[in-house]
Amino acid sequence: MTHFHGIFPYLVSPVDQTKGTVLESSLRHLIEHLISSGVHGLSPLGSTGEYAYLSQELRNEVVRITVDQAAGRVPVLAGVASFSTSDACFQAEQYANLGVDGMVLISQKMYPLSDKAQLSYFQTIAESFPEKSMTVYTNPGLLGDVLSISLLNELSYIPNIEYVKDASSNTGRLLTMLNTFGERVKIFSASAHIPLLVIKLGGVGWMAGPACVLPKQCVELYELATRGDWDTALAKQKEMWQINEAFTQYALASCIKASLNIQGFNVGDPILPQEPLNDVAIAHLQQIIAQLNE
Amino acid sequence: MTHFHGIFPYLVSPVDQTKGTVLESSLRHLIEHLISSGVHGLSPLGSTGEYAYLSQELRNEVVRITVDQAAGRVPVLAGVASFSTSDACFQAEQYANLGVDGMVLISQKMYPLSDKAQLSYFQTIAESFPEKSMTVYTNPGLLGDVLSISLLNELSYIPNIEYVKDASSNTGRLLTMLNTFGERVKIFSASAHIPLLVIKLGGVGWMAGPACVLPKQCVELYELATRGDWDTALAKQKEMWQINEAFTQYALASCIKASLNIQGFNVGDPILPQEPLNDVAIAHLQQIIAQLNE
Amino acid sequence: MTHFHGIFPYLVSPVDQTKGTVLESSLRHLIEHLISSGVHGLSPLGSTGEYAYLSQELRNEVVRITVDQAAGRVPVLAGVASFSTSDACFQAEQYANLGVDGMVLISQKMYPLSDKAQLSYFQTIAESFPEKSMTVYTNPGLLGDVLSISLLNELSYIPNIEYVKDASSNTGRLLTMLNTFGERVKIFSASAHIPLLVIKLGGVGWMAGPACVLPKQCVELYELATRGDWDTALAKQKEMWQINEAFTQYALASCIKASLNIQGFNVGDPILPQEPLNDVAIAHLQQIIAQLNE
Amino acid sequence: MTHFHGIFPYLVSPVDQTKGTVLESSLRHLIEHLISSGVHGLSPLGSTGEYAYLSQELRNEVVRITVDQAAGRVPVLAGVASFSTSDACFQAEQYANLGVDGMVLISQKMYPLSDKAQLSYFQTIAESFPEKSMTVYTNPGLLGDVLSISLLNELSYIPNIEYVKDASSNTGRLLTMLNTFGERVKIFSASAHIPLLVIKLGGVGWMAGPACVLPKQCVELYELATRGDWDTALAKQKEMWQINEAFTQYALASCIKASLNIQGFNVGDPILPQEPLNDVAIAHLQQIIAQLNE
Repeated sequence: MTHFHGIFPYLVSPVDQTKGTVLESSLRHLIEHLISSGVHGLSPLGSTGEYAYLSQELRNEVVRITVDQAAGRVPVLAGVASFSTSDACFQAEQYANLGVDGMVLISQKMYPLSDKAQLSYFQTIAESFPEKSMTVYTNPGLLGDVLSISLLNELSYIPNIEYVKDASSNTGRLLTMLNTFGERVKIFSASAHIPLLVIKLGGVGWMAGPACVLPKQCVELYELATRGDWDTALAKQKEMWQINEAFTQYALASCIKASLNIQGFNVGDPILPQEPLNDVAIAHLQQIIAQLNE
Repeated sequence: MTHFHGIFPYLVSPVDQTKGTVLESSLRHLIEHLISSGVHGLSPLGSTGEYAYLSQELRNEVVRITVDQAAGRVPVLAGVASFSTSDACFQAEQYANLGVDGMVLISQKMYPLSDKAQLSYFQTIAESFPEKSMTVYTNPGLLGDVLSISLLNELSYIPNIEYVKDASSNTGRLLTMLNTFGERVKIFSASAHIPLLVIKLGGVGWMAGPACVLPKQCVELYELATRGDWDTALAKQKEMWQINEAFTQYALASCIKASLNIQGFNVGDPILPQEPLNDVAIAHLQQIIAQLNE
Repeated sequence: MTHFHGIFPYLVSPVDQTKGTVLESSLRHLIEHLISSGVHGLSPLGSTGEYAYLSQELRNEVVRITVDQAAGRVPVLAGVASFSTSDACFQAEQYANLGVDGMVLISQKMYPLSDKAQLSYFQTIAESFPEKSMTVYTNPGLLGDVLSISLLNELSYIPNIEYVKDASSNTGRLLTMLNTFGERVKIFSASAHIPLLVIKLGGVGWMAGPACVLPKQCVELYELATRGDWDTALAKQKEMWQINEAFTQYALASCIKASLNIQGFNVGDPILPQEPLNDVAIAHLQQIIAQLNE
Repeated sequence: MTHFHGIFPYLVSPVDQTKGTVLESSLRHLIEHLISSGVHGLSPLGSTGEYAYLSQELRNEVVRITVDQAAGRVPVLAGVASFSTSDACFQAEQYANLGVDGMVLISQKMYPLSDKAQLSYFQTIAESFPEKSMTVYTNPGLLGDVLSISLLNELSYIPNIEYVKDASSNTGRLLTMLNTFGERVKIFSASAHIPLLVIKLGGVGWMAGPACVLPKQCVELYELATRGDWDTALAKQKEMWQINEAFTQYALASCIKASLNIQGFNVGDPILPQEPLNDVAIAHLQQIIAQLNE
């Protein structure tokens, strides 16, 4: 079993939309910045990474560059998201071959699926790549509903399903999970939760877009959360919370790309037809970032 | 400003539906039990108290009995819930005359209301009873949506609006509120949140149905939460969480009345057309209560 | 069995909010206007009639005045809406004593109710007043969900449940109902459907707020719908549709009160905290009404 | 401008999941059956066609076979559905090269898009293939919300956007569209509406899964709808309605594949992780099909 923990930035996918290519130097520069800021892992092709907007070729490029640049210094967990089991396995195979340490699994759907059908999706992928650590991602904003606790519990018995990332905003669900799984599956916070509280509850870290924008601060928050000084940790969390709020307020890809461009990372615009943020929103993000960078 | 804090059980409304009367001795017995268990206040006519199912005469009876039995030992906060401002003020007047210490305000609606309209509702009631402490209650399950943060912020400047109870299950909203209001309005947890976390965040207590069922344990949890021993508090919270889960799983009034009848309080059935729990659900509650009473 | 059919305006409830009284002469004037315009019945205390915003005294006044002014020329169907079965029966008793011909039944709820519980609600009321014709009203916008077809089918076997009004906007549901009930229960259109189509499908009429605003035109549409001239009926329906759209676009009580005030009926403002329409919306309604009155 | 009208079956996508290939002879057999039954067009890669579950290679195969088998006898409208504008254009290019007559455009999304962003999506695709007739498909069940009337109106001015298919179940929306677009864009019914009524309102046909299952009956219904005999048409529609209900009740792909397998078309199972229907559901479909085939 792996011991992933701490801050895993959801990576942006910087793309030159005219050429249809990854902005490789921007991505490498960002990854280097994140690792030097102390992050504990990297997660390309999450929702923040616009997985649904990328061709498989671009997805492969993002993963290839990430694994290469990380160079084993931190684990890389690539997002695998599909409607069909076979396409998900196809994606996973590419990323396994590219050398990722694990995958974050998302089940897209057009129509409601039974727990049994969703179990088969996750189980087939996980069992096809037993050497890779799997994180199951449940996100109602993205997918229409959350995975049921009983489904997650069934998944918890699959050896290489080791983590759950829950983006439901319902923190009580996490306590139900902890009571249900015990140590069988560990929990990562999403930005819809208050990361400090999730870690105090027993979560192992925070896997999220904001960590791509403010990695040093997120790492500091994680360290405060895992140490004993509650008052300092809470003060820091209160101050940091506005970046989580911004990721809720604005369209995800637009928000993270603007936030990184503000800081000079040249990651381009969100992929069409998504729109870049307007000037008011950019000014708002500038102010948050400036304040938290002080 | 008042300093309400701790455990405020949402009181059940025990009714003899044949006679159309309050089961006075059951209610008095329950209140006595709650106070002797250490609760810090009482809240009749909440959602748990089936306010929408009671005539104004029965509501007045419930409040009269509660104030009389409490006899000043703990504060009494009565629920005021209506569609129209005038009816809400009418209710509030009755409860003020009956001697409550404060009120928990709910805005029902048939159609969406602007923030300005909702502001006028809460402001009119609060300013009509400036001596009474007001708690604003926001509950999406009950009312279709949550009150916006900007509306709550406007309300926070009304002197006798002192508390918010949020039942959204989105714990992050509470941190946004804390950052927005500062000390102007204090926060009570509802059962949709994890009470321990809310108190650690800065909330002042837990106002909820489960506290009517397991008052001693809720008081103990509150005391652990406000003291420094995180590990013991978390272990207790984990164990206690199943009662919050039960209140989510079952219809509220059916759940609380069954839970109290199991313990011998003879509070009757939920008001028709609501149904009592079935035997499987009652057995489930019996098991939870037995385990937590050990 | 009754043979209600045609246009049943949902009556506005004109109230002097300062005095807390019904604006009796306005209501009588409106009713006289509606009857002289050819409407086939009157329905006080619907959602358009702000039932949830009126005290029982005001409700009784509205019904008393309506029955008195109608004076047997057209049937009067009063809205009965409550959370509890006992309060619904209490309301129904008042209206029965005041001489209504039937009632439109609404089941409010705080928490989901089983079909069995909802059946008991409607059945208890209907069987308590076997001489009165009952219409069951299902409205997801108002009540959170629609009554299931199987529940409606069970209700269809209760002798004095004679009509259903469905405000779901899903016209296909009506065909399912027609196939399910046959002649046991007849269907009235709500404004969320296209009345012409509902009548062509087999519905018996239109029970709605717009008929209070433009009674002559609604009666004409009904007559066209029941005659054979499809092209003229469709042209009329297309022209009339904008009043249904307005009732969807604006808050119901605000929309109907503005529409009647524009035409000189002095029905006052929506009951607080609901807000009157703003000037732009009023101008929009003025334009629709002027065009349809040409 | 084209004059597409009548019955356009949404084609199933028969796939051998072990080999990852299209079941070509099954698809050809089905298409031949549909054309000989009198359908007016064919629509591969709709929601019924499991577009989201197919690789681009399989999608191309389905379109190639359909165009080839239709051989110009009826128009072929292929579904184009994507998150990104560039991928949608990529798909459209393949289908244009394969010789389709038009396309049915779907905008998938992970997060809310502004009307301006969605306009750019549809406009870019339509203007890239000015020779092809475009149908815009709006489906809340599939996509989370409906396209706004004002967006659809903007799209109606793009010359080759000629049709809208609306699957909202809100038939009133169609009348609003007809009033808004006039002749600029024509309307196809989806199965969520009552096809007879849509055609009587002014719609040009029915584009749907049930037409793949019962083509002769759907063609007969269309002919009755466009002739003057309302009573016969309504009787037929009432009888046919149960197939629309079945498509609502069961998962779409599972329902259509079961319905075709029952009739001997050997189209295989829905693509994993979707599940085939259970025996009870299959028996239900068998009964409907037997009754409607009488």
